[in-house]
Amino acid sequence: MSMNSFGHLFRVTTWGESHGPALGATVDGCPPNVPVDAAMLQQWLDKRKPGQNKFTTQRQEPDAVEILSGVFEGKTTGTPVQLMIRNTDQRSKDYGEIAQSFRPGHADYTYFTKYGNRDYRGGGRSSARETAARVAAGGLARAALGDGIEIKGYMVQMGDRKIDRSRFDWGEIKRNPFWVPDAKAAEDWAGYLDGLRKDHNSVGAVIEVVASGVPAGLGAPVYAKLDTDIAAAMMSINAVKAVEIGAGMSAAMLTGVENADEMRMGPDGVEFSSNHAGGILGGISTGQDIVCRFAVKPTSSILTPRKTVTKDGREIDLITKGRHDPCVGIRAVPVGEAMMACVILDHLLLHRGQIGTNQGKIDV
Amino acid sequence: MSMNSFGHLFRVTTWGESHGPALGATVDGCPPNVPVDAAMLQQWLDKRKPGQNKFTTQRQEPDAVEILSGVFEGKTTGTPVQLMIRNTDQRSKDYGEIAQSFRPGHADYTYFTKYGNRDYRGGGRSSARETAARVAAGGLARAALGDGIEIKGYMVQMGDRKIDRSRFDWGEIKRNPFWVPDAKAAEDWAGYLDGLRKDHNSVGAVIEVVASGVPAGLGAPVYAKLDTDIAAAMMSINAVKAVEIGAGMSAAMLTGVENADEMRMGPDGVEFSSNHAGGILGGISTGQDIVCRFAVKPTSSILTPRKTVTKDGREIDLITKGRHDPCVGIRAVPVGEAMMACVILDHLLLHRGQIGTNQGKIDV
Amino acid sequence: MSMNSFGHLFRVTTWGESHGPALGATVDGCPPNVPVDAAMLQQWLDKRKPGQNKFTTQRQEPDAVEILSGVFEGKTTGTPVQLMIRNTDQRSKDYGEIAQSFRPGHADYTYFTKYGNRDYRGGGRSSARETAARVAAGGLARAALGDGIEIKGYMVQMGDRKIDRSRFDWGEIKRNPFWVPDAKAAEDWAGYLDGLRKDHNSVGAVIEVVASGVPAGLGAPVYAKLDTDIAAAMMSINAVKAVEIGAGMSAAMLTGVENADEMRMGPDGVEFSSNHAGGILGGISTGQDIVCRFAVKPTSSILTPRKTVTKDGREIDLITKGRHDPCVGIRAVPVGEAMMACVILDHLLLHRGQIGTNQGKIDV
Amino acid sequence: MSMNSFGHLFRVTTWGESHGPALGATVDGCPPNVPVDAAMLQQWLDKRKPGQNKFTTQRQEPDAVEILSGVFEGKTTGTPVQLMIRNTDQRSKDYGEIAQSFRPGHADYTYFTKYGNRDYRGGGRSSARETAARVAAGGLARAALGDGIEIKGYMVQMGDRKIDRSRFDWGEIKRNPFWVPDAKAAEDWAGYLDGLRKDHNSVGAVIEVVASGVPAGLGAPVYAKLDTDIAAAMMSINAVKAVEIGAGMSAAMLTGVENADEMRMGPDGVEFSSNHAGGILGGISTGQDIVCRFAVKPTSSILTPRKTVTKDGREIDLITKGRHDPCVGIRAVPVGEAMMACVILDHLLLHRGQIGTNQGKIDV
Repeated sequence: MSMNSFGHLFRVTTWGESHGPALGATVDGCPPNVPVDAAMLQQWLDKRKPGQNKFTTQRQEPDAVEILSGVFEGKTTGTPVQLMIRNTDQRSKDYGEIAQSFRPGHADYTYFTKYGNRDYRGGGRSSARETAARVAAGGLARAALGDGIEIKGYMVQMGDRKIDRSRFDWGEIKRNPFWVPDAKAAEDWAGYLDGLRKDHNSVGAVIEVVASGVPAGLGAPVYAKLDTDIAAAMMSINAVKAVEIGAGMSAAMLTGVENADEMRMGPDGVEFSSNHAGGILGGISTGQDIVCRFAVKPTSSILTPRKTVTKDGREIDLITKGRHDPCVGIRAVPVGEAMMACVILDHLLLHRGQIGTNQGKIDV
Repeated sequence: MSMNSFGHLFRVTTWGESHGPALGATVDGCPPNVPVDAAMLQQWLDKRKPGQNKFTTQRQEPDAVEILSGVFEGKTTGTPVQLMIRNTDQRSKDYGEIAQSFRPGHADYTYFTKYGNRDYRGGGRSSARETAARVAAGGLARAALGDGIEIKGYMVQMGDRKIDRSRFDWGEIKRNPFWVPDAKAAEDWAGYLDGLRKDHNSVGAVIEVVASGVPAGLGAPVYAKLDTDIAAAMMSINAVKAVEIGAGMSAAMLTGVENADEMRMGPDGVEFSSNHAGGILGGISTGQDIVCRFAVKPTSSILTPRKTVTKDGREIDLITKGRHDPCVGIRAVPVGEAMMACVILDHLLLHRGQIGTNQGKIDV
Repeated sequence: MSMNSFGHLFRVTTWGESHGPALGATVDGCPPNVPVDAAMLQQWLDKRKPGQNKFTTQRQEPDAVEILSGVFEGKTTGTPVQLMIRNTDQRSKDYGEIAQSFRPGHADYTYFTKYGNRDYRGGGRSSARETAARVAAGGLARAALGDGIEIKGYMVQMGDRKIDRSRFDWGEIKRNPFWVPDAKAAEDWAGYLDGLRKDHNSVGAVIEVVASGVPAGLGAPVYAKLDTDIAAAMMSINAVKAVEIGAGMSAAMLTGVENADEMRMGPDGVEFSSNHAGGILGGISTGQDIVCRFAVKPTSSILTPRKTVTKDGREIDLITKGRHDPCVGIRAVPVGEAMMACVILDHLLLHRGQIGTNQGKIDV
Repeated sequence: MSMNSFGHLFRVTTWGESHGPALGATVDGCPPNVPVDAAMLQQWLDKRKPGQNKFTTQRQEPDAVEILSGVFEGKTTGTPVQLMIRNTDQRSKDYGEIAQSFRPGHADYTYFTKYGNRDYRGGGRSSARETAARVAAGGLARAALGDGIEIKGYMVQMGDRKIDRSRFDWGEIKRNPFWVPDAKAAEDWAGYLDGLRKDHNSVGAVIEVVASGVPAGLGAPVYAKLDTDIAAAMMSINAVKAVEIGAGMSAAMLTGVENADEMRMGPDGVEFSSNHAGGILGGISTGQDIVCRFAVKPTSSILTPRKTVTKDGREIDLITKGRHDPCVGIRAVPVGEAMMACVILDHLLLHRGQIGTNQGKIDV
């Protein structure tokens, strides 16, 4: 019942702070004999890595992952995999002001209220650096999943700018710094975000994550539904304020006639005419694409002064210096993918545990 | 790691099907010495009870809760509380068609795919009747929480109709069948929903749940955040497709300047100028109102024919007869309240466990 | 993290008190499509049922189990199975003295100290009646395990009387009231226990439980070892004070040369020359018989006066009237079997979840 | 539900192999503001450290613990504490024979059978080196517990040699290499074990661990009993085959008259005339000393040839070279203490969570 763990059978516990010596993920329950090495994980960490362009924090971190346990002769052993990432660019600045005051919209106040202490260096445990460990664990989950299941994330909204779905192009996602599948949007957003950044401001975003190839039957009633676990996974990411599955909030506007994803027989079995359900009915996968979206709030650390208070109750106007992302949603894309990979693998293992390949029968 | 359990220390496991002899909740971890009796729980069940007006299912169920264990001489003992609700109105109808086919937009298909079997009587385990057990457990959580924390739910949207927040009236909520805090909306929605019902259609809704009086400091990084657990709680309710905390999906449209809930000192400590955060920062409560919304999709069981398939792969057009809610979101209001009560109590216990009243110190 | 739950994937939560309306087990995670009905479970409950001879409590309880959920058309559905046993013979006696004082050697004092209250009627939650629910759950586990795995319990010691292993006879176990595999011991013990009973005394016992047919490979390092979970399972039974696996406490007296269960190839694979390990090495099953023993202390409720104190601090000498077992170890035999069945099934599901039938590979 | 985690609220996950770069413990749920540094933990690791005398393995490991997270400015923050111990003396020997064959009495065979692979270097995950991580975590638990609770372990038996309790001397424990509270036994055992070692043999042992100062009321029915969790904790230690609480296996020989720990009022409340219960009744602490014993089997890696088989089914006689403990029970003493510390702290937090300081009442 660890507060820093996620997953049922594929169980990820992250640890570490922004400015400590290292952070990482302790991953238990990974199937054995999964071929994996650090380079395979690094490709995903490189997507999340800071300092790659002017739209993300300028902190320079290689985010090099080391596998300390659980992998032997190039394959997982089935025992815990320790994934460690050293912090290298902890700037030796004076944290005086941040140490004494609470950034509005940030976890500074609540951590201090809860614990009676706070690691104020770069946000400590509440820093988005924690998500590097998730990406490493997600990389391991992907390795275990193999090639049959594909997980892709991308931005669909930044501030009040949304993508035009008629221009949707999978190939475009890797070509722009926003992981956006719409070339025109990418161009537009670059100017928009640059303006906000120069205005000492930041902005929110919506990320969509799609998992394809997920077999029907994953998930479980009533509290460990596949959508419940996806909602928890995404909401647990820093700065996320909402999670949608399929039609999401728009489901409220649909009628029953519209919402029914009608079914017909196709060459390989049941086919659906639409996917308002986002691939999940009654908490269990339908075999369609799993579709999830989540909203990320704007970075709270901005150079514009905001009213706040200090630990000793003084009222001040605070400017937060430092190296912060103008749109933290950008780097949330690989994090959302990683969480999706972990949830899907976890539910594959759960399903295999309870149901097996033989509709439940124990074969001894 | 039960798939049908919810909560960390205040742990609720629900059981039972729509048309079995009974359903209920096994609640473990309730604090001892909480004054409670069946009548105290019944008040909440009566809010969710079907058949109260033409906008909900006409199934007649008293939903009378019995306390089978864990309460002695009018108070909880600290051991498991078994809350049982007998099913009384299981209509002896012919389930033939439903038993052989899958309602589109319903869990029929996925349950069958997963388990290789299905209790087709009234949806079995996937029936919204399961939520009666949640409401009973939520009643117990409220009793344990005492009067200092108030939890209120209400509808804010039905189909494309939204409330006008300038007309928000807490007193109005109990006066109309929609639990809507806007008298004019209530009137409008009555006609709107009646029209849909007569058209053999149904519609979705958005419910908002607010918890007041929650102290600052509840919640925990990184995966057992207060908002993570609320998101999971709400997404686990039947037919829910999205969950928002505070600004929710709209957080994507805010800038950092707008989103900062600025802080000043008030007579009783820190005060916030706004609550975009919905009372939660970094997964931990701020002391402000906890604000959550969730979207409920339209009932999939409708009298309008929809294309589907049978177990043996025949294509049919299915009309779902029976007694179904035209807007299942209405009865989701007390369910959302119950889940919020369970989450808040659970996090109060977790906080007390790790931190105590003395900032962590163990006093032996 | 329920305090009244046991198991990882096959998860049993028991509830209920000795003198409440009912008690039971909420069982989650059972594989689907297991053929089961109440009669199949009843056979095991009948073994534990009180009042069958003069060596067990004279309380008359049919211990009839009802299946309230999770079974449809004679098979498990894969959703929670609620197993309820009504209490019928709660004698309406005056609990005055017990209510005000603490039986020495009993949980009276600790429950009151912990919870600040106590259901004193027949021991409330601490009554051995709770174990009826375990036996019901164990019956379900046996049904899921099928015929390939056999679990047998029996007494090997009562007081200072031990069985003579040279007379070990499986067939004898069912023929005597002590479930002892040694006819001569059964005869001897009858007189011995009758004497103790007439002396207003009670006595302890050792039970051995053997599981045959368990495949090699079940269990897991480091904290969910098969022996760890068996130790927890048995120690959680009322009145148990020790658990041994294989050589048990005697392992301390062995040398490494003696302790090595040497291995040779047999017609069906590896064979062992001995089984000091009790079928478990490194927390994982070897394919040999799983052998476990546990010690049960004497019943603390006896007619001989013992010194104790009352709730308000008075010193008294207490005689405990009522209907108590002179050797509670007798009825612990089916309970130990039930716990073993639950642990084995749970680990079969866990193994299937992480490893599958294909050495870990996910096949999608 | 991690297989490599232990504890409910104070949750320890260990990771790492004998010959990997490092091993450690990820500890979640530690109360905040506990003063701790590496030196405080090192004192306990130094007790377990190998190579200190001829009675333990000659592998030279400093077992220096590094705190990578969760401690800031000398105090715990309340977030995960990562405790890492680098492996430094992985001898670059040829593992050829061990890699291809299974040591009888060792986990080699079962790991390979389960996972289809095995890290054969020094036993990999099944090595007793894993217990170094437990000792580090136990040190943190002790720091959180403060001075009010004292936990002491010692050997009471080696092979067929038992201590003479009439010579019991707490002060003696630290003076001899066996942690035995009986100077005469220490002298005798030295010769006995040296003889076994020279004979290429090894031997088992019994360790007793006592926790003093534990308040009454810790523990919980029915499956998270204090004794259940202690039994699991101790049985999870490598090579342990039995666990006893209080009278342990001998409880079977007691009558109810003897077993009753009679109660009288003392100056500070209830006093007990004896402690057959080992400080636990009904799974809940009585306020007396918690007394636990566990048996450790002899080291299976010995220089005497034993019959076994190879991976490819050849029958061989195996001599296990390398640096092995002739009595692994010696170094199990600090491990048993560490596990006890973790269990006690965990149950203090659980008790505080459910019951608080006010008999359950939530004060908001």
